[in-house]
Amino acid sequence: MQIPAIPPFDQAAANLAAQRQNMLTKPAGAMGQLEALSIQMAGITATLRPSLERKAVILMAADHGVALEGVSAYPQEVTMQMVMNIVQGGAAVNVLARQANARVSVVDIGVACDLPDVPGLQLRKIAHGTKNFSKEPAMSRAQAEQAIQVGMQVLEAETANGLDLVATGEMGIGNTTPSAAITAVLTNSPVEKVTGRGTGVDDAGLQRKIEVIKHAIALHRPDPSDGIDVLSKIGGYEIAGLTGVILAAAARRIPVVVDGFISGAAALVAAQLQPDVKAYLIASHQSVEIGHQVIWAKLGLRPLLNLGLRLGEGTGAVLSFNLIEAAVRILNEMATFGEAGVSEKGA
Amino acid sequence: MQIPAIPPFDQAAANLAAQRQNMLTKPAGAMGQLEALSIQMAGITATLRPSLERKAVILMAADHGVALEGVSAYPQEVTMQMVMNIVQGGAAVNVLARQANARVSVVDIGVACDLPDVPGLQLRKIAHGTKNFSKEPAMSRAQAEQAIQVGMQVLEAETANGLDLVATGEMGIGNTTPSAAITAVLTNSPVEKVTGRGTGVDDAGLQRKIEVIKHAIALHRPDPSDGIDVLSKIGGYEIAGLTGVILAAAARRIPVVVDGFISGAAALVAAQLQPDVKAYLIASHQSVEIGHQVIWAKLGLRPLLNLGLRLGEGTGAVLSFNLIEAAVRILNEMATFGEAGVSEKGA
Repeated sequence: MQIPAIPPFDQAAANLAAQRQNMLTKPAGAMGQLEALSIQMAGITATLRPSLERKAVILMAADHGVALEGVSAYPQEVTMQMVMNIVQGGAAVNVLARQANARVSVVDIGVACDLPDVPGLQLRKIAHGTKNFSKEPAMSRAQAEQAIQVGMQVLEAETANGLDLVATGEMGIGNTTPSAAITAVLTNSPVEKVTGRGTGVDDAGLQRKIEVIKHAIALHRPDPSDGIDVLSKIGGYEIAGLTGVILAAAARRIPVVVDGFISGAAALVAAQLQPDVKAYLIASHQSVEIGHQVIWAKLGLRPLLNLGLRLGEGTGAVLSFNLIEAAVRILNEMATFGEAGVSEKGA
Repeated sequence: MQIPAIPPFDQAAANLAAQRQNMLTKPAGAMGQLEALSIQMAGITATLRPSLERKAVILMAADHGVALEGVSAYPQEVTMQMVMNIVQGGAAVNVLARQANARVSVVDIGVACDLPDVPGLQLRKIAHGTKNFSKEPAMSRAQAEQAIQVGMQVLEAETANGLDLVATGEMGIGNTTPSAAITAVLTNSPVEKVTGRGTGVDDAGLQRKIEVIKHAIALHRPDPSDGIDVLSKIGGYEIAGLTGVILAAAARRIPVVVDGFISGAAALVAAQLQPDVKAYLIASHQSVEIGHQVIWAKLGLRPLLNLGLRLGEGTGAVLSFNLIEAAVRILNEMATFGEAGVSEKGA
């Protein structure tokens, strides 16, 4: 398949932003991570004054055959129920998106049951859930590629409404299991170091989850140098879809705010397919899932928030929109030492 | 002096909020620290649906005689210059307050020079800076009490405009030095463990700062069981003023969002004078100053943000307003399992 080319990060714009940060009426570096973020935003968007008016969460939903192995605390029907809750505006991501003045764009890319054709829900199902990857590959290579294409198409369609900033979100009972499997393979980490409790499995459930993932990796031997092979053998449709969203957004210089562990796994795959994508990623938060920090370390990103979140849906990403806007505003709206008549350090 | 009585935290409202959190369409606890925050907000305001419309930063400015000892990277005139920059809307706190739709209320409580009588600046100067506490007490006991009273009066006056949430802010060249001194005394910590680089002193400056603080504590022997004694001997006017702001806000059940290290020192003094105030405090962020986390630990608070900030002015506190609003919205706007027809865990 054709992976989109990513334009180069605009280092000149980033340098101008860094220079301006040092002219603003504050000690150099005193706004910490927000200064680095404003510089990154300038380099991504090739301007010091990117618009942040038009924001969206793209939320991909899918089911997982591996849920049959008892790796989640919730029954699979909850995926469908939560998708409808999100479409109706009742989920956490809807609340936070309303606050942030962001759209929520919901896509069925692989939910196990058929969902109704209602406004606000895009029906782009590739299959009724993945196969149980403890027994067979989650999907075919063609299906993995198709899911990435759907993600790219959804992002493209979203830009028609204007898109300055995009967050990744997902819903899928059982999806921390493929995410942990992908993370283990693409970061070359022991499964125990990247597998957490998801929505809240007990000790026995966690142990089962680890064993299922170890078994699947041994069985399918996914190739860490081939992200599509990894997705097809031990991935999920929402993860593949988000991989496409990330690639297509970076191709258009749209900053991508990556949410939790599942979104992080999609970012890992995107970076495997196209390493230049990393400059376009903003790590929104550090979740409770132990593998999340392994992903950020591999991608060389530092998360903005660390609030003990473990919900997904894009909630942490949308929460961080406010900090991204703050970073851009600080860069553009603060007075310089010269403008304000303030003495500089050691003057 | 009369320390205001603090009403009891409303445990019944907090319990109702906690019960509702467990009915919302998410795994219990999945919104992490925001769930605890929503419960705290309910207990503070005695309602599950507190208004957050009317927000203000109260920013107290003052100078410090101890700045003569070379403990800051900036000259003292910067206090005055930055106060005027803030009044004119050019500082970081103004940018963030505009974004958060919050007022900035600026008070000269002890700047070294006379400031003009201009709109947006309250002239409540108690003295032209503190005395150099490496040689004599920073202020008299009467002056410390007067500064606390000014803080209480400023908060009271601010409530006339409506006040649902208040952030503490400050400006004062040299003010990490009294803050470190106060923190060392009130947390019984070694001076080295609570003294940082402030706006950016070099190694020699840091060593000088530590020696100055050690010397002052040995010289004046401030009484850790008497917050006013501590303020008067090694404090600052803006710190004393913020102590008054915090006490008066808690007395009115207004949540107090505590900013950086200097604001934290004021919160320590407030909690020494009136331990019940702690339930009304929200720790906005963890700054670079090493003493800040010592303060949060002593107060039993967990900061919301950790972005490497070290600016003060109330910037970190205002940045956290968005998270506080998110916590309250999540509690009130999300659908319950029953409303959304979503199956619960293990169902």
